[in-house]
Order: sequence, then C-alpha cells, then structure tokens
Amino acid sequence: MSAPAGWTNPLRDTTDLRLTRIPEPNALVLFGVTGDLAQKKLLPAIYDLANRGLLPPGFSLVGYGRRDWDADAFREVVEGAVRKHARTPFREDVFAQLAEGFRFVRGDFDDDDAFDRLAETLHELDGARGTMGNYAFYLSIPPGQFPVVTQQLKRSGVATSDSSWRRVVIEKPFGHDLQSARELATVVDSVFPPDSVFRIDHYLGKETVQNILALRFANNLWEPIWNANYIDHVQITMAEDIGVGGRAGYYDGIGAARDVIQNHLLQLFALTAMEEPVSFDAVDLRTEKEKVLSAARIPGDLDASTARGQYEGGWQGGEQVTGFLDEDGMAPDSGTETYAAITLEVDNRRWSGVPFYLRAGKRLGRRVTEIAIVFKRASQYLFPDTATQSMGENALVIRVQPDEGTSIRFGSKVPGPGMHVRDVTMDFGYGHAFTEESPEAYERLILDVLLGDPPLFPQAREVELSWAILDPVEDHWAATGGPLEQYPPGSWGPASADAMLRRTDRHWRRP
Amino acid sequence: MSAPAGWTNPLRDTTDLRLTRIPEPNALVLFGVTGDLAQKKLLPAIYDLANRGLLPPGFSLVGYGRRDWDADAFREVVEGAVRKHARTPFREDVFAQLAEGFRFVRGDFDDDDAFDRLAETLHELDGARGTMGNYAFYLSIPPGQFPVVTQQLKRSGVATSDSSWRRVVIEKPFGHDLQSARELATVVDSVFPPDSVFRIDHYLGKETVQNILALRFANNLWEPIWNANYIDHVQITMAEDIGVGGRAGYYDGIGAARDVIQNHLLQLFALTAMEEPVSFDAVDLRTEKEKVLSAARIPGDLDASTARGQYEGGWQGGEQVTGFLDEDGMAPDSGTETYAAITLEVDNRRWSGVPFYLRAGKRLGRRVTEIAIVFKRASQYLFPDTATQSMGENALVIRVQPDEGTSIRFGSKVPGPGMHVRDVTMDFGYGHAFTEESPEAYERLILDVLLGDPPLFPQAREVELSWAILDPVEDHWAATGGPLEQYPPGSWGPASADAMLRRTDRHWRRP
Repeated sequence: MSAPAGWTNPLRDTTDLRLTRIPEPNALVLFGVTGDLAQKKLLPAIYDLANRGLLPPGFSLVGYGRRDWDADAFREVVEGAVRKHARTPFREDVFAQLAEGFRFVRGDFDDDDAFDRLAETLHELDGARGTMGNYAFYLSIPPGQFPVVTQQLKRSGVATSDSSWRRVVIEKPFGHDLQSARELATVVDSVFPPDSVFRIDHYLGKETVQNILALRFANNLWEPIWNANYIDHVQITMAEDIGVGGRAGYYDGIGAARDVIQNHLLQLFALTAMEEPVSFDAVDLRTEKEKVLSAARIPGDLDASTARGQYEGGWQGGEQVTGFLDEDGMAPDSGTETYAAITLEVDNRRWSGVPFYLRAGKRLGRRVTEIAIVFKRASQYLFPDTATQSMGENALVIRVQPDEGTSIRFGSKVPGPGMHVRDVTMDFGYGHAFTEESPEAYERLILDVLLGDPPLFPQAREVELSWAILDPVEDHWAATGGPLEQYPPGSWGPASADAMLRRTDRHWRRP
Repeated sequence: MSAPAGWTNPLRDTTDLRLTRIPEPNALVLFGVTGDLAQKKLLPAIYDLANRGLLPPGFSLVGYGRRDWDADAFREVVEGAVRKHARTPFREDVFAQLAEGFRFVRGDFDDDDAFDRLAETLHELDGARGTMGNYAFYLSIPPGQFPVVTQQLKRSGVATSDSSWRRVVIEKPFGHDLQSARELATVVDSVFPPDSVFRIDHYLGKETVQNILALRFANNLWEPIWNANYIDHVQITMAEDIGVGGRAGYYDGIGAARDVIQNHLLQLFALTAMEEPVSFDAVDLRTEKEKVLSAARIPGDLDASTARGQYEGGWQGGEQVTGFLDEDGMAPDSGTETYAAITLEVDNRRWSGVPFYLRAGKRLGRRVTEIAIVFKRASQYLFPDTATQSMGENALVIRVQPDEGTSIRFGSKVPGPGMHVRDVTMDFGYGHAFTEESPEAYERLILDVLLGDPPLFPQAREVELSWAILDPVEDHWAATGGPLEQYPPGSWGPASADAMLRRTDRHWRRP
C-alpha cells in the first residue's frame, strides 16, 4: 500500500529508526481461499501487513477456487475474514486501497482454461498495477493436489521467469515419512527451483523462536554454559489442552509425532542445539540445522526411549470431554497416538551424553510450548543436605507460547538464620518488555516470502533429516502396536512417558 | 523467651520444617544504651528476636550508662525504642516476659564500683534467671573508650571464664588506618581471645549479601562464567541520597572511603571475588576473603585510579539542600570527601585484567547499594551494527538495598521483521519470592553473637588487609589535596569519577 504524502503510520513507533524493508511490487495467488487457514490466518495477516505499511504499492491478491464468486463476492469474503481475525484495527481506507488489487479466478485444479485465465489475470495486473511479473503462489491445499496445481502453473507459463521472481509456498504435512517427503519434494522441485520453494513451519515465524538465536548468540551469558559440561538435559514440550475435535478424520493415521514433532519440535530442537552459524543467511543457518539434525538419533531400545498414548474421555476443566477413540469419525480401534515423547541423543562434542526429551500431546494439563534447558546440579558440598532439599536444578526456560518470554530458575537463600536455599524464578516477559506487539507468525512469514528472505523456511533436506530421525520409531510403533497407553484428559500424558525419564532419575517439568 | 506449652509462634511459617537454633541462656550487656544505634537498631532487634521465639529462656539484657535510671525507667526507654522501631508487631506478653530479664547499672566507664556492681548483677542473673555465666558485651560506644571499658571488664572479672562463654561485640570504625586498626585490635585482644571478638559490619547481616554465597555456589549457572574469561568488570556502588546532616563533626576527617569503602564495600568485593571456600565455617570463609583482599590493590597512578568529591549546595528532589562545606559544624576548608571511587585490580588467575570499581557517596541520585557484574560483549559478528546498537553489555546485578533482589540484563530480539536486538531485564525480587520477611541485619548478627557463630563477622586480619589497600590512597589524597571536585546534589558524583572509567572506554551504570 503506498502511503499518502505526509501520512504517518499510527502503528509504527516513531522512535524506531530501523529501516523498514518493503517487498517489490508483486501478486500473491492464493489457492484454498475458503480453507480454515486462509480465513483465520493468511487473509488477516495480509491485511495486517498492509495496515502496518509493509506491503508495496500495487500489491495484488488473486484468489483461485471453485466458488462462483465475482469480484465483489471475493472482496466480501476477504473483508469478513479480516474483520473477524485481523490483529490490527480495521481501517476502511487501508482495506479499500488493498482491495483495488483483489482478483478472483474461478476454476478446478485440473482446468486448463481456468489456469490460462489466471495467467491472463496476472499479466493484466502487471500492466494495471505494476506487479512487474513477480508472483508468489500460496498452496494452502492438501499435498495430494500439489502435482496437478504445480503442473498447471508450469503449463500456463506462470511458474518461471527470467526477468522477475516466482515463488511457491507450501504448508505441512511435508509427507508422512522420508519416502513420501522425497516424492513430494520431487513434485514441487520439478516445477520450481529449490530456492523459490518456501516451506512454512509457522513456529519459525514466532518471535520467541527467532529469539532463541538472539538469546544464544547476541549475549555472552549463555553460550559458555550451553554444552554437555553444564547442561544435564533439555525438555521441549508442546502441550495442547484441546482434543482432535473436528480433525479426527485427518488426524487418524498421523498422530502427534508426525503432526508436530517431525516439524515444530525438531525445528525447535535444531535451533536450540545447533552450533553458531557463520551468519544468519539462509544457507549458513540451514547448514547448522542440518548438521545437528544429522547428528541426532533416538537411542537403542525404542520401547525405552519413546512413549505414546491416547487421551481417554472424562472430565477436564469442569467439562465432560470425549475420549480419542470415541471422537466423531475416528476408527474405534485406531492405533494413532495423541501423545508422543521421544528421547534424542546428539552425537557431537557439544552434546555428548545430554538427552533431549521432546513431547507433544493433546488434552494435556494446559496449552503451553516451551524449551527448558536443565542444568547440572552444582556440587552441593558447601550446603548440608537440609539446606538445599527444596532446591531443584537450575533451568533456563524459553516460553514459546503463550506468555512468550524467558525465565531462569535458580537457588536463592531463604531469608532467616542459617543458609537454606530454595528455588526462585527470574522472569522476563515479551509482553512487558516491548511496546511493540508481537506480529502473528504468518505476517512475518508472508512478508519474508514476498521479500524473498528464506532463513525462516526449512529446506527439503531438513524435512528429510527429520523424517529420518522419526521413521524408525514410526516403523517400530506400527510393527509392535505399542506402547500405546490411555491417559486421562487434563493429565500430563501416559505413565510410559514418566518412566522414560525415570530410568535416568530425571522427571518432566510441570510447565 | 520460653514459649508456653502449646503456644504456636504466629510469626513462624508452619510449613517451614527447618530446625531453629536457639542460643544457650545468656546475658547481653549493652554499653551505649542511649545512642542512636541502640535506640533505632539494637533494642528493636532484640525484641524482634524475642518475638520470633529465637531467644533462650532466661535471656537477660543489662544496660550500662550514666543516666540516673531505675529499673522502670530503663524498661520504659527500651519499650519506647521497641514500639517506635521494631520490625514485628508489639505484643504486650512478649515484651513483659522479655522485660523480666532487664537490668540497669548506672556508672561512668572509669568507675570501679559501678563495674563491680555490673559483675554482681551478672552473677545475680546467673542465679535468678539461669544465664549460666554466658555474657556478651556489646560496645556501642566510640572506639576511644574501648581501652577503659575492656580493662574494667577484665578488672571486675567478667571478661573471661573457663566454664562459660564471654563475647565482646564492637562496631566500626575499626581505626582510621592500618596502624590505628592494629592498636585497636591490641586493646581488645589483650582482654578477649580473638575468637570471642565479634566485629559488626552490618552489611554482612543483610540477606542479599549472604545470598551472594548461595547465588554463586548453590547454582551451576554463574560460577562457570565468574572469571576473567567472561567478566569485563565489576561495579560496586553504595549511593546515599542524604547528606552528612548532624554527623558533620564526626564525618570531617573520615570521608566516604574510610566510612564505607574500607568496610562495607571491601567486604562486598571480597564475597564477590573470592574463590569457593572449603566450607561456610568462619575459618574457611575468612581464609578466602583474606586471600582475595591480599591479592587486591589500587593500581599505579592514583590520580587516575581514584576519584573523589564533595557535594555542593543546591536543589535536590524539590528541596534546597546545604553544601557539604556549609553543613553545621563543618570546617569550611575541609578536605574530606563525601564521594570516593577506587579502582581495584586483583592479582590472581580468576580476575587477571578485570577491574573492580567501588564507589560510595552522599547526596547522589538515589539511595541504592548494588553489585553489578558486567560481562564481556559477545562477538557480534552475527549481528550487523544496526541490529545491536541499542544493546549494552550483559550484566548480573545484585541489589543489596533497597528492593533486595537480583536481575539480569541481556539482549532479546525486538518483535518485528528483521533481527534487531535490544536490552531487556529479567528480574527476581526477594520481597516477591519469599513469604518470609527479611529480618533486619542486626537481628541476624545479634543472634549469631549469642549463638557464637562467627562467619558473618570480619576478623582483625580482614580489617587490616582492607586498610592496607586504602592507606596509600588516603596518604596520596592527604599529601596532594586532590582530586577533590565539587558535584551537584542529586547527581552521580564528580567528573573525575566518570573520567576514571572513560580511560578504558567504560562507564558507570545508572543504578
């Protein structure tokens, strides 16, 4: 959106002197306009970017779908989604200016004519709004439809260009194992060059996740103790308090490990465990993430180093909730887990002997995503047993959501005579520290796509390395059918998960 | 105070299972009952200890002074001080029980008869209240009177005993240079064995000061980076916002360095910089403090490594205040400083190349005592100049007073596109973390005297080592008369103090 002369963006802190980068003029083509993701996240994020003054003059949005919509109907659909879900206030003038670049192309995914009309529409925009042949294609559709859409984009001549940029954005799931991930990559790569493929892992768009890099490398406090000499183990938790709900059909056969450990949690692991990159450029970052993913493995006895479960029906937070096997559309003998935990060992010098415990589950005690770095206990010879009995290990906790922030747990003297030590917490909350409101992950990620900034997008190799870690576990679970225990709603998962840590005298943090 | 059977102390947290140590029955003899310290701190602290159930049955308090008081008058004086200054609520029954052990002996310090009556009184208490011959003598009087009082205690036969304990408590100033400190120690040591002499540095009774030991040694987070590899420098600040007020006469000729750097600040320095002791026993602690005090020195050019000043008259916090030289009773040409700053270097492996900056002053911006550990800047090659321009050094700040607590300053990503890093603060406040209210320093210290626990009391050797550090500076200042600049009230001291750090591109924190 071009700003009128003399106009000051009220959403921008005037004391913030950082230069804002604005993408080149372009058109974003959205497949899957009526989907949940587009309605709740993508369309609102596009408006929020416009409202923050971060979109270029002439930015255009082209919807593609089967609905019998004219231009006005499409505009109304977008406006509805924006009014309902946008983060920033609705402003008529901003939306009206944005809507001048709206187009809608009606068609099925195998409709040659429709894709030809899409191509015409894009060319028309180049002339009418100066989009200069820069197109991003956002495939917010099931992966099964990637082949036909990418081939159609190729056939109609809009997939590549020598003089302008073409990018494609895809969403997880990136396959359901290593084999299928490779096949999917081949489909997309056969049309788009690898550096124009943007894989969205929306966790990487979260401020706290990006802050892992700042926390580790802009400071001198943590990196000296960020290794096996001082760290006992690391816990990465993604807990949801809801069940599968309407997604039962999709979820069956996928499960917690494929749904979130393979992508979100292994990405959090990689950012936490990787070596310091040469730069934050995509290639350098990816190199370090790939290195640490290559070095990670789930050790030996898979029954001991993994755990999984399914939530039961029962009471949670004063409400009666349905058990996983009784959810609508769920096979009553489903072997899919709603809770998964894995142990990772990393075969390098920094992490030798330090387990990383990753867990993800539905219907757990509360909704929280966090990374907890648990430090070795200091030698306590100075303190008699009674002096430190109410003290745990030192821990640095990075809260990804909600209440994004960082806290440290450490021992402090209890006021009074004698030297008694108890755990206290030192806390930093993003919400309190910054006047800037954290943008939604999708705002950041869509902007990066339009800017052509790839560091926050995993490449095919990272996806494949993650599957290589998980495949043996999925095979083992499928072959043995277990362990698959029931756990009560509102609990912290099955007993096998506790046993997994208890073997080495450790325990899960209560987040 | 013996508690009635079945009585529960309402000031004690019932979930606190730690065993409370109660001193043996004893009598505390207080010289200087009418003094400011006794009225505001000592008598209230004794009552607070009784109220907390920490004094033994039969505990007795003997006042010695020139006032013409009978037992009732003494009791009223104590009650007045307690009602005005005690930390815990006044309870008639507790005070009445405590007052049963009150005695008052009238006399001058050179009055043989009076000291004989004191001896009789103590023997009477042994019988009447079972104090068992255990006496502590608290000399809350000017050091010039120590010789006569200690000799009188010796002459009257109450200074030593083979079968029970005798202790003497003395307050700073412990001399005004190395020579006079040694003379003073000789006076006291000639009557009391060294391990029965308790030197009060009330800073060591503060919870946050004792917490330095817990913070450093009960945790594994700090000790690995507590050295010259990671620490750039350390700042120890004791700022007062008031002037010398009624103490002008006393203060002239002493100055900020002798008044607080020699004792409080060098003790904070020693606890911050010392190696880990073998145990928290007095001997082991003292050994480490003495080692690091022996290794510390003020480097080379004393005009460059020290600074001092006197506050001017002017406006502070909306009030017009008097300049130091115009205070009542002050010599108008006084060369005494109200602000002093020194640079310390420590000649050992841990601190090689790490300066410790100590500063103390009156009429500064606000009242605060803190230790700031300032870490070296992390290599910023990952972050372009603009990304970290609003970021300072990492710092761990231990706030000794007020708002006792600990905070860490570190860099965190600013929400928004791009990797911009800004300082944020992670905070822990004693007041919020513990339900236990921090006792007054004097409660802890008087209790330790009665328990015979010496770790928090500096021994003569520490006092002498501190003077050995300061003597060359005092001599230099006396010989050259400078630097002695004026500074405005409410400022942060003279320009020479800023220049002292600027020579190495450092700057004072604004606490």
